[in-house]
Amino acid sequence: MKRNPHRPLVRPWRTVSPPPALDQAGKHEARFVAEFRDFVRFPSISVQPRHAADVKRCSRWLAKHLRLVGLQHIRVISTPRHPIVYADWLHAPGRPTVLVYGHYDVQPVDPLSAWTVPPFGAVIRDEKLYGRGACDDKGQMFAHVKAIEAHMRARGALPVNVKCLFEGEEEIGSPNLIPFLKRHQRSLAADVVVMSDSRMADQDRPAITYAVRGGLGLELTVRGPQRDLHSGLFGGAVHNPLQALCEIVAGLHDRRGRVAIPGFYDQVRLWPPEERATMARDGPSDAAVLRDAGAAQGWGEEGYTLHERTTIRPALTINGLTGGYQGPGGKAVIPAVASAKLSFRLVPDQDPGEIAALFHRHLARIAPPTVRCTVRTDLAARPALVDRRHPAVLAAAVACAAGFGTAPAFLRTGGTIPVVSAFQKLLGAPTVLIGFAPPGARIHAPDEHFPLPTFFKAIATCTRFLEEVGRAVPAHRRTTALS
Amino acid sequence: MKRNPHRPLVRPWRTVSPPPALDQAGKHEARFVAEFRDFVRFPSISVQPRHAADVKRCSRWLAKHLRLVGLQHIRVISTPRHPIVYADWLHAPGRPTVLVYGHYDVQPVDPLSAWTVPPFGAVIRDEKLYGRGACDDKGQMFAHVKAIEAHMRARGALPVNVKCLFEGEEEIGSPNLIPFLKRHQRSLAADVVVMSDSRMADQDRPAITYAVRGGLGLELTVRGPQRDLHSGLFGGAVHNPLQALCEIVAGLHDRRGRVAIPGFYDQVRLWPPEERATMARDGPSDAAVLRDAGAAQGWGEEGYTLHERTTIRPALTINGLTGGYQGPGGKAVIPAVASAKLSFRLVPDQDPGEIAALFHRHLARIAPPTVRCTVRTDLAARPALVDRRHPAVLAAAVACAAGFGTAPAFLRTGGTIPVVSAFQKLLGAPTVLIGFAPPGARIHAPDEHFPLPTFFKAIATCTRFLEEVGRAVPAHRRTTALS
Repeated sequence: MKRNPHRPLVRPWRTVSPPPALDQAGKHEARFVAEFRDFVRFPSISVQPRHAADVKRCSRWLAKHLRLVGLQHIRVISTPRHPIVYADWLHAPGRPTVLVYGHYDVQPVDPLSAWTVPPFGAVIRDEKLYGRGACDDKGQMFAHVKAIEAHMRARGALPVNVKCLFEGEEEIGSPNLIPFLKRHQRSLAADVVVMSDSRMADQDRPAITYAVRGGLGLELTVRGPQRDLHSGLFGGAVHNPLQALCEIVAGLHDRRGRVAIPGFYDQVRLWPPEERATMARDGPSDAAVLRDAGAAQGWGEEGYTLHERTTIRPALTINGLTGGYQGPGGKAVIPAVASAKLSFRLVPDQDPGEIAALFHRHLARIAPPTVRCTVRTDLAARPALVDRRHPAVLAAAVACAAGFGTAPAFLRTGGTIPVVSAFQKLLGAPTVLIGFAPPGARIHAPDEHFPLPTFFKAIATCTRFLEEVGRAVPAHRRTTALS
Repeated sequence: MKRNPHRPLVRPWRTVSPPPALDQAGKHEARFVAEFRDFVRFPSISVQPRHAADVKRCSRWLAKHLRLVGLQHIRVISTPRHPIVYADWLHAPGRPTVLVYGHYDVQPVDPLSAWTVPPFGAVIRDEKLYGRGACDDKGQMFAHVKAIEAHMRARGALPVNVKCLFEGEEEIGSPNLIPFLKRHQRSLAADVVVMSDSRMADQDRPAITYAVRGGLGLELTVRGPQRDLHSGLFGGAVHNPLQALCEIVAGLHDRRGRVAIPGFYDQVRLWPPEERATMARDGPSDAAVLRDAGAAQGWGEEGYTLHERTTIRPALTINGLTGGYQGPGGKAVIPAVASAKLSFRLVPDQDPGEIAALFHRHLARIAPPTVRCTVRTDLAARPALVDRRHPAVLAAAVACAAGFGTAPAFLRTGGTIPVVSAFQKLLGAPTVLIGFAPPGARIHAPDEHFPLPTFFKAIATCTRFLEEVGRAVPAHRRTTALS
């Protein structure tokens, strides 16, 4: 592929004699975008019960779409919450089996007032498609679907066996996917798992993520008096759950930004200087992290770069606080209850169960006797590492170079993708994470978007990946459909 | 009045030959209750802009009602927010002038889900009228209105000159009443102010409140990154405004429950042992405070009873916390902003302006440099004391004994009534606070209510008060109507 360095390549298929699959993608570009917009219009917010029907409608749309693309054995599998969508194409004997994973559920949209477009309007502005989930993960997973379609259109066949597994619960910690993987361990067998739900190194350079942090999501509730009290009449005589909550939360970190829970760092793996040097070279600088965050200065554990603090070091974040009066002006109230949402990000070799136990012990020590505390676990996921030398990872690197005109970066991420450790453990397959989310795509935030040029390059990358992995990875797994 | 001790007196007018005004009240009892319900049905929530029209409608209803009762010079006076309702009757030359103050605005209703009746349904259950504002302050102020009506019906005249001043902004700190008092200082002149917006000593015994705490309401906003961030990607590298807010709030009290702001206690008046002994005798015990609060144990400044902590000692209460994700389940977010509503309760000789300055200085000291803090003042009111030996206070005690069959208690309150110090300062009149709010009436909380027997006894008390004060208080003020 030839490239004019002064003009970014926005349509990878606009080259002299593109390969047949890429050529097909180019011919159907406008329709691909229209379908992508249809996909984004579903408010498939998995965490909010009032959107359960939207999640379901989205799963049905997706299943129907996979059939149109040419996949087989289409299934929408009910779970106690949101459906799993499965489809496959298993007609490449002797070739490896690739399980394509993605999620069609999305984060909530609040604060709604901070959006400049309707969150589910799928508005296109400056060649970017805006919408909750446009980047995380609908746009990224849809690139794989369109790559499959491109191959099917070009030769009526795929260069590998493919199983698609798209869930509707990633944003709530995949509670039903893991049991599903356990139940169908044999028929879901694959030689490699591929997914795109991670970041690029910069606007033009994709990244292969080889380490994800684990997660532990907790909701801490603090109860005081049996009912809301007038704060004039009782202020000074009754412990206020809001104040107790603040005191507890303040007691979770020390003054230097380290988590103050005894034993929290005991199992954290220390990395040799060479690994840290690689991270310093390939990962974002402190300045880049701050620019990306829109923050004036960094914070956290001393002795580590900001990139290290968000990847090889664990963290505890307060995701939400609520209690008392929140309307305009004031209200003289001591509320009966206050609560905080907390999330730990864990690294090898921390275990979510052990960390939860340490948290409970610490809470018992620091919570004042004048209030009652309860803790609910919303999420528990182990951290995971992927072997960078695996041939499927190298195939992904070649594909990125073809799609984006540049070799990918190899990165660790601070985020949590609970399924990665599950795929490793249950399917015995390494997971290749090819990240197409550009910095500034505002995932989880208002005005999330996905640039259409990135979407096109991602399709080209995924198209090429299926070819490369078919050549590079030996076929070990039986190609059985979902039982 | 004779009373059967085994059967509480619920209709003070059901005695042998009641005085004429009381007799009139008895004859119109059913209508008085119906009108009280009409009054409660207005959702006159002053703090919430969406209820501004409801506040206005309520003020018009009240003005119309005062005309029906026989008062004159009725006026609904617009202010930058909610109207003031004025009416008078000035045909008792040589008699003192009593200014009756009350407020027709109410607190917000949240948490709505905790109500067992519609907050503005004016439901009557077990002889109690339920509704936001039923006790604070609609029921209590309406007792004065009905007492005026009873006198007018009995003899077509009142035993004193009366000016009624009812505001719609008490729950937001009376921002426009004080300027109004300043503007009409001369024509609002009165010998005594009477109001009922305070608590009883117990279910059967009214209380005369002679001390109110001042107030300082602040909203603290903490800002971090420019936009909401993904807490997986940035957790550990950016200071979270929610966490910083908790750290700041936790730094406002020391471990022993005292406010940790340097200088905060410097101007607090210390009381002699005799005063504290009187308070111990007349005020609620620690057990009674805890029972009333529905709290298992007390909290706060050592060396003081719970009653003292809420009356002669100042306090700082967190009334609300908000920030980040508050829906079901979790959301991986570091929000850009978090905020807390704080309210100080102040005692003589603390000054709200000075306390605000101390708070700002302390905040500058404890706020981490990684976030930006701003503070808005929602309310500032001085504490106030009323001379217990004033003849109007004694008149009120006699009236309570007549209405309730028992002498009132003399109490301090922890609440703030900003107008009390203003009446003292601007009109030169002492304010008699006759409290009809029974413990457990759940003011400011869900299921607020006012027992109808208390309403009836309050009417009897107010009827008698006008007679007693006419006899006991010398007339000094010119009886001019509002200019």
